[in-house]
Amino acid sequence: MNHDTPDKLPKSQKWSGEEIGKHSTDSDCWVIIHGRAYDVTEFKAEHPGGSKIIMKFAGKDATETYDPIHPPDTLDKYLARDKHMGEVNMETVEVEHEADPDEEDRKERIKRMPILEQCYNLMDFEAVARRVMKKTAWAYYSSGADDEITMRENHSAYHKIWFRPRILHDVETIDLSTTMLDSKVDIPFYVTATALGKLGNPEGEVILTRGARKHNVVQMIPTLASCSFDEICDAAEGSGQPQWLQLYVNKDRAITERIVKHAEARGVKGLFITVDAPQLGRREKDMRSKFDDVGSNVQDTGGDNVDRSQGAARAISSFIDPSLSWKDVPWFQSITKMPIILKGVQRVEDVLQAVEMGVQGVVLSNHGGRQLDFARSGIEVLAEVMPVLREKGLQDRIELYVDGGVRRATDIIKALCLGAKGVGIGRPFLYAMSAYGLPGVDRAMQLLKDEMTMNMRLIGASSVDQLEPSMVNTRGLSMHSTAVPSDTLGLNVYDPLVNPPEKARL
Amino acid sequence: MNHDTPDKLPKSQKWSGEEIGKHSTDSDCWVIIHGRAYDVTEFKAEHPGGSKIIMKFAGKDATETYDPIHPPDTLDKYLARDKHMGEVNMETVEVEHEADPDEEDRKERIKRMPILEQCYNLMDFEAVARRVMKKTAWAYYSSGADDEITMRENHSAYHKIWFRPRILHDVETIDLSTTMLDSKVDIPFYVTATALGKLGNPEGEVILTRGARKHNVVQMIPTLASCSFDEICDAAEGSGQPQWLQLYVNKDRAITERIVKHAEARGVKGLFITVDAPQLGRREKDMRSKFDDVGSNVQDTGGDNVDRSQGAARAISSFIDPSLSWKDVPWFQSITKMPIILKGVQRVEDVLQAVEMGVQGVVLSNHGGRQLDFARSGIEVLAEVMPVLREKGLQDRIELYVDGGVRRATDIIKALCLGAKGVGIGRPFLYAMSAYGLPGVDRAMQLLKDEMTMNMRLIGASSVDQLEPSMVNTRGLSMHSTAVPSDTLGLNVYDPLVNPPEKARL
Amino acid sequence: MNHDTPDKLPKSQKWSGEEIGKHSTDSDCWVIIHGRAYDVTEFKAEHPGGSKIIMKFAGKDATETYDPIHPPDTLDKYLARDKHMGEVNMETVEVEHEADPDEEDRKERIKRMPILEQCYNLMDFEAVARRVMKKTAWAYYSSGADDEITMRENHSAYHKIWFRPRILHDVETIDLSTTMLDSKVDIPFYVTATALGKLGNPEGEVILTRGARKHNVVQMIPTLASCSFDEICDAAEGSGQPQWLQLYVNKDRAITERIVKHAEARGVKGLFITVDAPQLGRREKDMRSKFDDVGSNVQDTGGDNVDRSQGAARAISSFIDPSLSWKDVPWFQSITKMPIILKGVQRVEDVLQAVEMGVQGVVLSNHGGRQLDFARSGIEVLAEVMPVLREKGLQDRIELYVDGGVRRATDIIKALCLGAKGVGIGRPFLYAMSAYGLPGVDRAMQLLKDEMTMNMRLIGASSVDQLEPSMVNTRGLSMHSTAVPSDTLGLNVYDPLVNPPEKARL
Amino acid sequence: MNHDTPDKLPKSQKWSGEEIGKHSTDSDCWVIIHGRAYDVTEFKAEHPGGSKIIMKFAGKDATETYDPIHPPDTLDKYLARDKHMGEVNMETVEVEHEADPDEEDRKERIKRMPILEQCYNLMDFEAVARRVMKKTAWAYYSSGADDEITMRENHSAYHKIWFRPRILHDVETIDLSTTMLDSKVDIPFYVTATALGKLGNPEGEVILTRGARKHNVVQMIPTLASCSFDEICDAAEGSGQPQWLQLYVNKDRAITERIVKHAEARGVKGLFITVDAPQLGRREKDMRSKFDDVGSNVQDTGGDNVDRSQGAARAISSFIDPSLSWKDVPWFQSITKMPIILKGVQRVEDVLQAVEMGVQGVVLSNHGGRQLDFARSGIEVLAEVMPVLREKGLQDRIELYVDGGVRRATDIIKALCLGAKGVGIGRPFLYAMSAYGLPGVDRAMQLLKDEMTMNMRLIGASSVDQLEPSMVNTRGLSMHSTAVPSDTLGLNVYDPLVNPPEKARL
Repeated sequence: MNHDTPDKLPKSQKWSGEEIGKHSTDSDCWVIIHGRAYDVTEFKAEHPGGSKIIMKFAGKDATETYDPIHPPDTLDKYLARDKHMGEVNMETVEVEHEADPDEEDRKERIKRMPILEQCYNLMDFEAVARRVMKKTAWAYYSSGADDEITMRENHSAYHKIWFRPRILHDVETIDLSTTMLDSKVDIPFYVTATALGKLGNPEGEVILTRGARKHNVVQMIPTLASCSFDEICDAAEGSGQPQWLQLYVNKDRAITERIVKHAEARGVKGLFITVDAPQLGRREKDMRSKFDDVGSNVQDTGGDNVDRSQGAARAISSFIDPSLSWKDVPWFQSITKMPIILKGVQRVEDVLQAVEMGVQGVVLSNHGGRQLDFARSGIEVLAEVMPVLREKGLQDRIELYVDGGVRRATDIIKALCLGAKGVGIGRPFLYAMSAYGLPGVDRAMQLLKDEMTMNMRLIGASSVDQLEPSMVNTRGLSMHSTAVPSDTLGLNVYDPLVNPPEKARL
Repeated sequence: MNHDTPDKLPKSQKWSGEEIGKHSTDSDCWVIIHGRAYDVTEFKAEHPGGSKIIMKFAGKDATETYDPIHPPDTLDKYLARDKHMGEVNMETVEVEHEADPDEEDRKERIKRMPILEQCYNLMDFEAVARRVMKKTAWAYYSSGADDEITMRENHSAYHKIWFRPRILHDVETIDLSTTMLDSKVDIPFYVTATALGKLGNPEGEVILTRGARKHNVVQMIPTLASCSFDEICDAAEGSGQPQWLQLYVNKDRAITERIVKHAEARGVKGLFITVDAPQLGRREKDMRSKFDDVGSNVQDTGGDNVDRSQGAARAISSFIDPSLSWKDVPWFQSITKMPIILKGVQRVEDVLQAVEMGVQGVVLSNHGGRQLDFARSGIEVLAEVMPVLREKGLQDRIELYVDGGVRRATDIIKALCLGAKGVGIGRPFLYAMSAYGLPGVDRAMQLLKDEMTMNMRLIGASSVDQLEPSMVNTRGLSMHSTAVPSDTLGLNVYDPLVNPPEKARL
Repeated sequence: MNHDTPDKLPKSQKWSGEEIGKHSTDSDCWVIIHGRAYDVTEFKAEHPGGSKIIMKFAGKDATETYDPIHPPDTLDKYLARDKHMGEVNMETVEVEHEADPDEEDRKERIKRMPILEQCYNLMDFEAVARRVMKKTAWAYYSSGADDEITMRENHSAYHKIWFRPRILHDVETIDLSTTMLDSKVDIPFYVTATALGKLGNPEGEVILTRGARKHNVVQMIPTLASCSFDEICDAAEGSGQPQWLQLYVNKDRAITERIVKHAEARGVKGLFITVDAPQLGRREKDMRSKFDDVGSNVQDTGGDNVDRSQGAARAISSFIDPSLSWKDVPWFQSITKMPIILKGVQRVEDVLQAVEMGVQGVVLSNHGGRQLDFARSGIEVLAEVMPVLREKGLQDRIELYVDGGVRRATDIIKALCLGAKGVGIGRPFLYAMSAYGLPGVDRAMQLLKDEMTMNMRLIGASSVDQLEPSMVNTRGLSMHSTAVPSDTLGLNVYDPLVNPPEKARL
Repeated sequence: MNHDTPDKLPKSQKWSGEEIGKHSTDSDCWVIIHGRAYDVTEFKAEHPGGSKIIMKFAGKDATETYDPIHPPDTLDKYLARDKHMGEVNMETVEVEHEADPDEEDRKERIKRMPILEQCYNLMDFEAVARRVMKKTAWAYYSSGADDEITMRENHSAYHKIWFRPRILHDVETIDLSTTMLDSKVDIPFYVTATALGKLGNPEGEVILTRGARKHNVVQMIPTLASCSFDEICDAAEGSGQPQWLQLYVNKDRAITERIVKHAEARGVKGLFITVDAPQLGRREKDMRSKFDDVGSNVQDTGGDNVDRSQGAARAISSFIDPSLSWKDVPWFQSITKMPIILKGVQRVEDVLQAVEMGVQGVVLSNHGGRQLDFARSGIEVLAEVMPVLREKGLQDRIELYVDGGVRRATDIIKALCLGAKGVGIGRPFLYAMSAYGLPGVDRAMQLLKDEMTMNMRLIGASSVDQLEPSMVNTRGLSMHSTAVPSDTLGLNVYDPLVNPPEKARL
């Protein structure tokens, strides 16, 4: 195909579906996105997600698949202006209904969803979401790095912390409120940044904004949101609702500076610079799911898919600067007055360094187990950090946050006993949103509040400032043990004990 | 409906079932309980268990469901006199036999129950009870807080304690008797307080009274019994059988004072003030079972069930005073001469405080794992407490009891080695009672005696005062570890070893 | 029935089966054993195994069931002379072939047994034995106390010990021989005493004698053997094969003295006094299996079975003296010159006491996990004992043996590294005997020798005296931990990783 | 049969298949290998693999089974010249196609193999290989010693090491290269020696050579290769690709000297003397698989198979000298200038001895878990060794390598943090080769590079010399614990929590 102007339409005219359909070969490939045609013939070889996925939509409407995984301004940024071929008359585009048995099953499962009131805890939303989400969306949200050991450890680590509750303190009135970076919030958790919200719900991250507003908690806005930054800010407009910005630092610092200043102008209350993701992780569950999708009847391809199939997030994150270092911190301090918080700190040495450089906070985090497998849980790092800070008298010089694995109010209480100002919660709210939309997010937050009120009473604390280290036992926390591999032959021959059997039916 | 007197009957007349049946709408709702009609039209909105469950019995007899979960004086207390509509001629009330497949199955399982002699240990009663109890009753008894981790830890903690038995001591005669709060008992366990006994057996807690009498052990009478306090006292009357009172402290101290003084007057030997339950716990298994019951064909209800479905116990416990504090202890000491024991102490600091305030005992307990998940087991707390008391020379100033998870005589022996005066056992006797009634309770107690006699011999102690700390190894007790999450991919590809196969059939 | 002499036969006459068959009621009950009739009408109420099991054979031949669980002289001892009714003409006794589906299945399984060469390790014999043994025999051999936790721990404890092998030592020639109580043996294990050998093989313990002779290892003769003591001694006669005697001490010391002196006269080389069994254990698997047998179509019996169904071993052990104490040791030393060894010592304090009293050895043992559940493994006790003995310079004053859980030559090597002179092996040889008879025992012993030669080479020791503590790591040995109870809800929602799927079949 | 010359053919003539077929009895047994006939009538009794396997091919072509498990010069070495009967006209030899259902299934599984791009990690190759390899080949590669506990521990041990990553270091450029024994390599792993490569792929070890060359890593050439030493050297010829030699020391030192000098002449860069295998291990999975193969319709054989069925590797390793000791080291140093490395060192004492004797390196290894079960993992030994070396100032006197269980780049990074120069990887490349040939090996290595680049970034190190001990937490590494045996009865009666159920289908 040649790219002459003849293919271009005069303004005010629209392509028909039939015309678009002719551009469906490797050497002449157009796609429709949001009612406009784009010539991606040349671009597709550079497409970070590989060319295969594009060819699947050659000559067709790709909007549904494209939308959740590309920020709104993607086409403007990455596709030359002269490849934007103009509007399409969508009434002339045939909607394909290929019979997808997986999708049929999923729709059936949606019909049989339990009602919202049957979800009693945050895991319940995840159970429902797993049944009703699209497979690829589920894979993207739920996957972690390598063997997903850190991802699971994140929650499991909380199980190594046990309570030492005190009794006979007046707990009639429980005050869950606290302050994070000078914002007053109703309960010490915040909605942490997670990418690609539209995979779970067509409205995307603004649903989380509305949930956070209702419960007066902070939302951290992700760099890789499906909604644009301004859409998310707009959703909070006028409510006084505090928002923070999670930032992947661009190789082009001018872009970064623009983003930061814009955020400050829009009233964002904290700048959370991600420091645990110089490169976005390999998540095999995600990679495998994509492969299944694109490559279901694949033949041996001689290796073409190798590097490209590593997931959307990685692809769209190629702008992230892996050379970011401590030397860049003063620059950030020079361009904004927002508090600066390093997100993804993982050992005490780096917390001390952060104090030294005058940043206002750190998030002890391993990126939800999605980056380095065998990174320790944030809560374990917290238990390492806080005693050192106290010993050096630095405990008030920096705010510590923790994220990863928080599912119960008891988890929040544990983190606060160990010295955290608050905890970030990500996936659980995504799952609640994906399964039930805003009412799901609302209920999830309400359940946490109910659990927390109850458990504050039971631990003997009427406000969060009363939570302190003597209320927990962390002896087993940093012990990473695996049992001796099992003795298969010995177990094979052991007859387990049984309870009394029922009488036989006559 | 209007609430005019015309609906009232002249004394000596009775309602017919047909008349009651007319009051079966949301705006005109009567129910029959124990042969009397009650107008609950207005009350049902305030019903702690929610209005749905009431509407299920609108115009009908609710006695069977009502009875086990409401103390005898509930209607007098909570329903205005003018809503007590008078007697019903029960012969005119049609007994409904709705086909309930679950209930049919249960009846079939009851027919096939193993005989009592096939129960060899306390877990066996639980296995049978699970098969033959009503689902909701089972859910109420068996559920715990949140993830039920503390509930399971309670028994599991005993497995971390190992024996160092001594040999070649004369163990021909074994004396299991001991003294608790000056009462002589035959074996160092007591029947601890558990609520709603009629869920398991229509006669309720008096069955436990009779079992305790037969084996000469103490019964602790629960505040939330299905039987009235006096019924339970009466059942012990004249036998010299010691009883204790478990007390939830009422916001209205006058009521509490009345209860305490009445108990003392009836000869109760100890006042056990519950200090681990300023609010009764969320038990999701219980909540879910209720939901299943009421809401089996539910549609989305817009949230009405949310707060109400949290279980009967929580509902009827709204009187408990969450402001109870150390400051209240002297008041209790002023109104009674009974020994005062704090039930639900969970760390050594609070035991020391209890000694200081001159209370006679504490029960190291987490309320059977039904309140704060990740509270430590009583036996672990005991191992923390006793060395400190001994170091301070306070070991004789207070009696220590432990409950939670006791299933074997070895568990009792471990607790006594570590310094407990006795252990409380709750659920196992409920299960024995639910499955087999009094003979079940009798056998359960006898099995514990048999086990204990045997195991005292094997550990080399002929009386309980010979049990001492050097007889146990507790090195692993306070280590709360979880294994590193499993390596799924690696385990997938491992071929387990196998034993020699049988020859193929020819 | 009356017990007049008319029922007695003149000498030289025999009863017919038909005549015996008339005595088959509760009030007139005879049984045939080894071709002779016995009137057990009165005795059956005192029968330690309960009367039910006797009534099953009323008027019939009971030999097959009676034989393995009663020592040869039982009838003479326990049944008055005048109840011995004389010989039966066995040709007139009808052999019953009741259809027993379990037994049919078992015979089918025997047909399909793997050949002996397919057993590669000691667990393999157990796997085969489980399939081909009678259910009650299997239950008796394989059961342990309470929850069988100590029984399983016994083997599992070896898994907590890891090797620190040394390299580059000449291991061309490996010498496995050693000396135990002055007897030279070919490999440092002995066949420990186990009861009721005829349950596994009609010839009983003499098969073990022959196996031990072939491999030149010691056999310890059990008090509760199915064969008589002299039969077992006779089987060793003339071979110079060393034998030891395991002794349950009788309440009647005259009997004990007779046994000990007789053993010494027959050349027994060591007297192993059992000190961990003042009463024989409750083994629920065994009890349950008996119940199944006798009580398969039971109705509620009002409790008659309760105490009687506790297993044959317990019944026939009623003679054991629970008052045995350290004070009795000098008496034993006064009646025999054989070395005296205490079997069942479980803590260092008692080993020191044993040294003090001048006994020649102890067996660190918990009776195969059949007595006190949560008793520690012998190997764990050994690791506690040996450093103390060395510190006090007593390591050569006493020989230490260990039994329980030994299944691999590596287990033997671990015990020797930690200071044991030798290890006892019981159940594995019983299983080898039960499955394959003498060839099974032979192969089991040979496999241990092969494994041991190999593993001595690999650990870098050419003779057993080179095995020493620096060759093992025991850091985790005495840590009895249980994992935090699992997080069911969290695990429910985790999607395990999977390997690449096969392509779908077309 | 008599062995007269008449059976010999004149040169230039060939046997026909029919003629060979006549020699198929126990007393007259020929086989064809690589187109030549051999008289093995007498030899077969001495055959280390037993005579049965030979009789299976009596009178037939045995090449396919013979080839992978016999080094090329086996027949010349072990079969007397006069039993080499000359060439066979292979066109006259009937190819047997016996219906082997296992083999049919395997071929079907090969057809449905996932494509190479679906393998995302090293475990994936193993999963595919297990499905598509011949059962005996799989058994040989995948089996380990005794209970295979060390084999599994090898990988599991890495899971006890957790990262302490540092942040904000410039990781734009990652340099994975390093130097091993003066050879520059692109990534710090090498292909370690594994036997019998042709079991997995008909071309054998040369495939690994080509893979190693492509990625510029070292290959260690095994003594027991299926290819000859020279074939493997030839495959590397001219590329400058570094190779090492793994050496089993022959009882005949002249042979050993010849091998060593030849290797040095061919340019081999390091001599790795195996010190953990004075005798090759018993691997029951392997033994059992062989038995299944040969003995599928076996009758009891009276023991003939006992010693012979212990696996090909053991058989062909009978030349290994178990008397090898530290005294031999100087002799090796005298015959070669190649660096000498001891492979299979397992405790710090022996590393110190190695330093003392001036060897250049050690491999901390337990032979892939194939020798001594309960030997510790190499990585655990490394964590023991390195601090001692550093304390003594010896850390630069010797190079430490580790092998066993390496599956992820994170494993490599952990080893390097703890002080290893590099890690050996064996089975994973064999599996990649067996499943996909050279492309499989290539992809496996590329995946490791991708993982490592990523994970170096995430740990905050831009080159391998920056990896250091503070980046890992090894607290749980040397703790070998097993959980207390499970409480079967208790677990039986526990009702696990469940998530909300789906609505019933209507």
